[in-house]
Amino acid sequence: MKFTINRNLFIDNLNNVMRAISSRATIPILSGIKLVLTDDELILTGSDADISIEIKIPVSEDLNVESTGSIVLPARFFSEIIKKLPGKDFSFEVKESFQTKISSENSEFTINGLDANNYPRLPEIPDESSFVIGGKILREIINETQFAVANDESRLVLCGVHFTFSPNAIKAVATDSHRLSERTISLENGPQNETDLIIPGKSLQELSRIIGEADPEIRVCPGDNQVLCQIGNISFYSRLLDGNYPDTDRLLPSESTTEIEIDLAELSSALDRASLLTHAGRNNVVDLDLNTENQTVKLTGTSAEIGNVEEDVSFKNLQGENLKISFNPDYLRDALRASITDAVIMKFTQPLRPFTVIPNKEDVRFVQLITPVRTF
Amino acid sequence: MKFTINRNLFIDNLNNVMRAISSRATIPILSGIKLVLTDDELILTGSDADISIEIKIPVSEDLNVESTGSIVLPARFFSEIIKKLPGKDFSFEVKESFQTKISSENSEFTINGLDANNYPRLPEIPDESSFVIGGKILREIINETQFAVANDESRLVLCGVHFTFSPNAIKAVATDSHRLSERTISLENGPQNETDLIIPGKSLQELSRIIGEADPEIRVCPGDNQVLCQIGNISFYSRLLDGNYPDTDRLLPSESTTEIEIDLAELSSALDRASLLTHAGRNNVVDLDLNTENQTVKLTGTSAEIGNVEEDVSFKNLQGENLKISFNPDYLRDALRASITDAVIMKFTQPLRPFTVIPNKEDVRFVQLITPVRTF
Repeated sequence: MKFTINRNLFIDNLNNVMRAISSRATIPILSGIKLVLTDDELILTGSDADISIEIKIPVSEDLNVESTGSIVLPARFFSEIIKKLPGKDFSFEVKESFQTKISSENSEFTINGLDANNYPRLPEIPDESSFVIGGKILREIINETQFAVANDESRLVLCGVHFTFSPNAIKAVATDSHRLSERTISLENGPQNETDLIIPGKSLQELSRIIGEADPEIRVCPGDNQVLCQIGNISFYSRLLDGNYPDTDRLLPSESTTEIEIDLAELSSALDRASLLTHAGRNNVVDLDLNTENQTVKLTGTSAEIGNVEEDVSFKNLQGENLKISFNPDYLRDALRASITDAVIMKFTQPLRPFTVIPNKEDVRFVQLITPVRTF
Repeated sequence: MKFTINRNLFIDNLNNVMRAISSRATIPILSGIKLVLTDDELILTGSDADISIEIKIPVSEDLNVESTGSIVLPARFFSEIIKKLPGKDFSFEVKESFQTKISSENSEFTINGLDANNYPRLPEIPDESSFVIGGKILREIINETQFAVANDESRLVLCGVHFTFSPNAIKAVATDSHRLSERTISLENGPQNETDLIIPGKSLQELSRIIGEADPEIRVCPGDNQVLCQIGNISFYSRLLDGNYPDTDRLLPSESTTEIEIDLAELSSALDRASLLTHAGRNNVVDLDLNTENQTVKLTGTSAEIGNVEEDVSFKNLQGENLKISFNPDYLRDALRASITDAVIMKFTQPLRPFTVIPNKEDVRFVQLITPVRTF
């Protein structure tokens, strides 16, 4: 195995493969990156228990193949070495007993590699039920829901986002049982048959980073235990979570008794200040007092040790019954960060019933639900 | 105690006082910041065991005094609160039992304070033996020596930089007994009497940050156990280290048998790559092979697990006897980072004797010494 390649081209692809490689690999060979060279392309593969990424770099004037072959190299060191090499190109050659020579200008590394035959194989996923969606939409719906998945693995299915792809829409729901985020976006060419997938939150974070700021076309191929997302020359595989996702629609309240429309920036900065003190104490809870008669909104946070803060929050519209409610400010902060309109509407029923945060625009189908905290 | 102040003015000064406040304060009250308000000025004080900083903000149109007084507030929370307040100004009022109200626009904090009478007093240092130096020179000499102090407190005196101020020069030496950095800079108006001070490395780091990128005039007032540096409205106090600093001049070799002149950038990047592998193993040692006959310089680094790297280093000039020497690459990296010329001269005698790194300009008085490692 011997080739010469443009260093920047290689680094761009290497950075994406590295996303799949965990610093705490469960199988030693998975701390490595696999390189396979054919006459047509160089294939880089990285994997951990949940994600696998395979990238194909086609032969071009920037990639010159001298002889084909394969090797596995320690991923972290290999990546650091390539990034610190001098020169525009580097050459790569596998010698006896998997010793690999990497050289560029006056610098020459010899790295101990491993037999690529021992590297686990990627699943084969038929693309018969595949469909295409835009990268921008997928990234948006990930960013609007993924933060709400459970971190605690006691109910594993809640560690994933539940996607329902249908011919005209994509719906995503995430909940850690304290708060929920549900988002629906219209599609033009969704799959003909409704497709249900529960994808781990961590996989989605990496997928969102790979999609980046551009709007690439993504082919989604659902398999039995894995889903493959094909983005240009990148094949991104994620494990799917098995099990029945709870029916979250029944959790969403159908009516409300108090309603407030409020500026996103105004509420965010008041919440930020109130939680300064609640983060210091053991009870991370703020109190919201909506007085519809006096038309005042007060947000307070208290730490027995440090002191307290009271915010007079300005708002656009407040109606319904007076209400006092207490909740974890971090859940509302996350909900506001995910919001895509300049103002939101919060709808309440009772002090101990969940409340919703929705956009102030009717055509945006986005509901966030937050469970309050009992403080008396 | 009651005043109103421009928030940005206050934050600029607060940030400097915060440098003296440790997150692991040994005396509880030192996790606080002291505020004293007179008819003329607001005085902020922060301190840990080693450093104290006092800043005076004079009354102006940006600082409006309603009533004088004093208070100690929890520094970290107070600083976060002020930074997150809305509005251009904020008002500050101490109420009963040291409760302090901080308000700005619709936001109002009430913080539990402490009696300022319990805050330790700053030392009184007479300024009769004081002298003035330029901030730029002081910062430069700190950055060129401070990194070489010992971190291990078993020989406390080595945790400081040894300064000798004389009428025409300032000399600074730091060593952790494995490497040494000695720098001398000419002064125009140094102290009339030679003044010796051993200032802790950590104090100097903070002092360098306070000096910043500007070139303020600094009045240095040496006291018995403390030194005071007066920089504009900032009084910076540091503890001095007691004891006899070793006579380092006798450590500097007077002659050499091998000498190389080498480009700083070239050597730095070769060293960076070589230490990639040595950092992975237990022995963080690189080997340098200077061959004067063949006019070649090789730098190699090895990790039994990962592999090895060989760098053909280009150089400007190499003369004397052939030499192979092994050393910790981090010491040379630090020495090169502190260097202020584009190229350095390294002078060697024997493989187990310390070597020096000096500028390639004779008028720059800067010597760094590195002790090699025995590898056979």
